[in-house]
Amino acid sequence: MGVGELIGYPAAILTTAAFVPQAWKSWRTRDLSGISLPMYALFTLGVGLWLAYGIAIESWPVIAANGITLALAGLVLWLKWRHR
Amino acid sequence: MGVGELIGYPAAILTTAAFVPQAWKSWRTRDLSGISLPMYALFTLGVGLWLAYGIAIESWPVIAANGITLALAGLVLWLKWRHR
Repeated sequence: MGVGELIGYPAAILTTAAFVPQAWKSWRTRDLSGISLPMYALFTLGVGLWLAYGIAIESWPVIAANGITLALAGLVLWLKWRHR
Repeated sequence: MGVGELIGYPAAILTTAAFVPQAWKSWRTRDLSGISLPMYALFTLGVGLWLAYGIAIESWPVIAANGITLALAGLVLWLKWRHR
């Protein structure tokens, strides 16, 4: 494993795992007041494209990381849309 | 430009640009109540590692996208820390 993978894998795990506490907090409290709707609209669309990119280049790490992030960011987007 | 780049560049632009409306909303309103502190701590650290990854593999798109995201997510993290 080169230096790229040694940094890249923890980077991917952190930026994916980060959405777990946000999705959990938003689900539990239904407090979406400080959350930006345009952010989650743009971000969810972007992560959907990252997932398509992973499929296009047949990269399982990209598919897995973005599949999980898509579900979590999509949940926050849906909650924000309902509580806007 | 292959199909990967055709999907990958808009994906990178969207997931980076998404943090502009969030950082602007957080800065303007100082309403951080629905924002998860652990999310922004993990995410900012992860984006910092993505930036290091971009430097390690000498990829300017990765460096640019994550440099901008680091500044924007770092601002939200700092505001949340102050208003926790």
